[in-house]
Amino acid sequence: MSSVRTPDPNPGWLSDIALDETRSRVPILYVEGIPVRVDATGRVEHVGLLLRGSATTGAMNRTFVSGRVMHGESVRDALLRNLEKDLGPTAFPQLPTTIVPFTVAEYFPLPGVTPLHDPRQHAVALVHVVPVTGDCAPRQDALELTWLTPEDAASPEMLAELEGGRGSLLKQALAHVGALP
Amino acid sequence: MSSVRTPDPNPGWLSDIALDETRSRVPILYVEGIPVRVDATGRVEHVGLLLRGSATTGAMNRTFVSGRVMHGESVRDALLRNLEKDLGPTAFPQLPTTIVPFTVAEYFPLPGVTPLHDPRQHAVALVHVVPVTGDCAPRQDALELTWLTPEDAASPEMLAELEGGRGSLLKQALAHVGALP
Amino acid sequence: MSSVRTPDPNPGWLSDIALDETRSRVPILYVEGIPVRVDATGRVEHVGLLLRGSATTGAMNRTFVSGRVMHGESVRDALLRNLEKDLGPTAFPQLPTTIVPFTVAEYFPLPGVTPLHDPRQHAVALVHVVPVTGDCAPRQDALELTWLTPEDAASPEMLAELEGGRGSLLKQALAHVGALP
Amino acid sequence: MSSVRTPDPNPGWLSDIALDETRSRVPILYVEGIPVRVDATGRVEHVGLLLRGSATTGAMNRTFVSGRVMHGESVRDALLRNLEKDLGPTAFPQLPTTIVPFTVAEYFPLPGVTPLHDPRQHAVALVHVVPVTGDCAPRQDALELTWLTPEDAASPEMLAELEGGRGSLLKQALAHVGALP
Repeated sequence: MSSVRTPDPNPGWLSDIALDETRSRVPILYVEGIPVRVDATGRVEHVGLLLRGSATTGAMNRTFVSGRVMHGESVRDALLRNLEKDLGPTAFPQLPTTIVPFTVAEYFPLPGVTPLHDPRQHAVALVHVVPVTGDCAPRQDALELTWLTPEDAASPEMLAELEGGRGSLLKQALAHVGALP
Repeated sequence: MSSVRTPDPNPGWLSDIALDETRSRVPILYVEGIPVRVDATGRVEHVGLLLRGSATTGAMNRTFVSGRVMHGESVRDALLRNLEKDLGPTAFPQLPTTIVPFTVAEYFPLPGVTPLHDPRQHAVALVHVVPVTGDCAPRQDALELTWLTPEDAASPEMLAELEGGRGSLLKQALAHVGALP
Repeated sequence: MSSVRTPDPNPGWLSDIALDETRSRVPILYVEGIPVRVDATGRVEHVGLLLRGSATTGAMNRTFVSGRVMHGESVRDALLRNLEKDLGPTAFPQLPTTIVPFTVAEYFPLPGVTPLHDPRQHAVALVHVVPVTGDCAPRQDALELTWLTPEDAASPEMLAELEGGRGSLLKQALAHVGALP
Repeated sequence: MSSVRTPDPNPGWLSDIALDETRSRVPILYVEGIPVRVDATGRVEHVGLLLRGSATTGAMNRTFVSGRVMHGESVRDALLRNLEKDLGPTAFPQLPTTIVPFTVAEYFPLPGVTPLHDPRQHAVALVHVVPVTGDCAPRQDALELTWLTPEDAASPEMLAELEGGRGSLLKQALAHVGALP
């Protein structure tokens, strides 16, 4: 849903033409992960946001771990694959025991239908909050991963930096874990 | 996910050829609804199962309300549209206040990957339990809607009649509402 | 959790002395209900807030439907009883099919432990969003029920009027149903 | 809810007399944890059940991690305290980011009201599935912790060994994580 994505380790599953055509036909299923650091009782202490540069506009913006569910791939596998792709191999994410997301995010190509927007496609994302315990090493196009307290993450400035309207998703995530200021 | 579907009121969104092609490329997003009758405290008293005849095998089987999310359509609208399509205009379904499903069902074309199976496609369904208060009049290919107590619905015979492995989904639904015997 | 409560239709289950003593010993279990009006697809259009006068301070404040779970009473029965007590007999609340709440609210007698605070006790509340379809007639000490759009309900002024820190709960509820502005 | 409990590290919060009196007045709030081992994608591979001997009957039975929420204690702290009490200090439980349980379990002193039963009291438990990554060393009255596959855990024999009707809870837990056979 960003205009620049970390190249997928399994490229070529769909050609650009086939993907564009498919995007015009059906909603595309995504998984998204919001990395967090937690204390011993599971309370969220920090939220991890990726900083990326947009290929089209050159602007910097913030986003979550995000990627398509491939044909034949399970939701769990897609979530783990995208977490490893965006956070590196030593992040040690603790995936949830259930694949029921805390929210279902709907991105429409036309702005304004929902707070969320993706000019490329109609996308529907299963969004999870994912504790990570290891070292995160963002790869390729992601410049850095910033750890923020819930208070800092929920500041109007930071929420506005999140691409595609994901500020509303971040507030939902913080509310879900009881950490929305 | 059944081999025979109630024709959609908005046909032709995708031609059969385009749909087949798309199904080979990406997982297809569905919504499913399990109709229930509840008492004044919300407790599930009866579960509604649709009886359908299979076009390919001629066999009768049971299923839920189910249908694709169309390009540009919200999950809520897709759920309401499919409930009205399968239960008729006077069912008065009480849609959930959240679109977070009680489970995410993954159907793979190859049998055995999960308990769920759809020979046509890789489908991912957001599944909801939906109380209905009005009269249900199943339309077209659905022969009838049968209301069963949780005990009867969870009997091995009935679970085995559910198409595509949905017996496992029905047990999940009953467990979710605290009515799994 | 308000200092003035609608008298319970089954008074005397515990004497004031016994209740005070119990409150000093264990957390007290509550249910809370946030009444909402929804459209045909389940989307929340209005949130209902009760206006009450405080017996101790004389100030007016806003609250949700709220009450204790009695000894021997099921959570479902407690939720329905308190909805009928606070909204009247013709509100026709649609209780959830699951008793899993959207949040567990923890009120401590000491302010500042959590955003929530109840000077009388340590209370733990199971909080539900409850669509109501009928006419609400707040009873006794509740002066009125006001229906607000999610935008108006989430305004800083309104959030500050909610007693015991329930502004944070209301934001959680709106986030849960995808209606937090 | 078992007749024999591991002594609490903070004994004497309530005398036996005060606790008995309190139990006759209000529902008592518990937390329960079902320990699981998960794979890298979060899928549950094994469920941990505690084996205990009953002081009253001498019979052996199975149970979960379970304990009261103390006055003034947060739900998160109570869950961690009880996990450490029953699994030892090196279990390294991964507590959930949200305190919303997968189910709310209601135990009544009178058998048959729900599948769950506790002769001592009316108890309401917030139940969580908790991945543990370390070594579990059950303490004191718990004889052992047995790791079972979901298939073995859901066998009728094992479900019947779970005390207080917790077989129904275990099925709910397995359904929640998508592992009910």
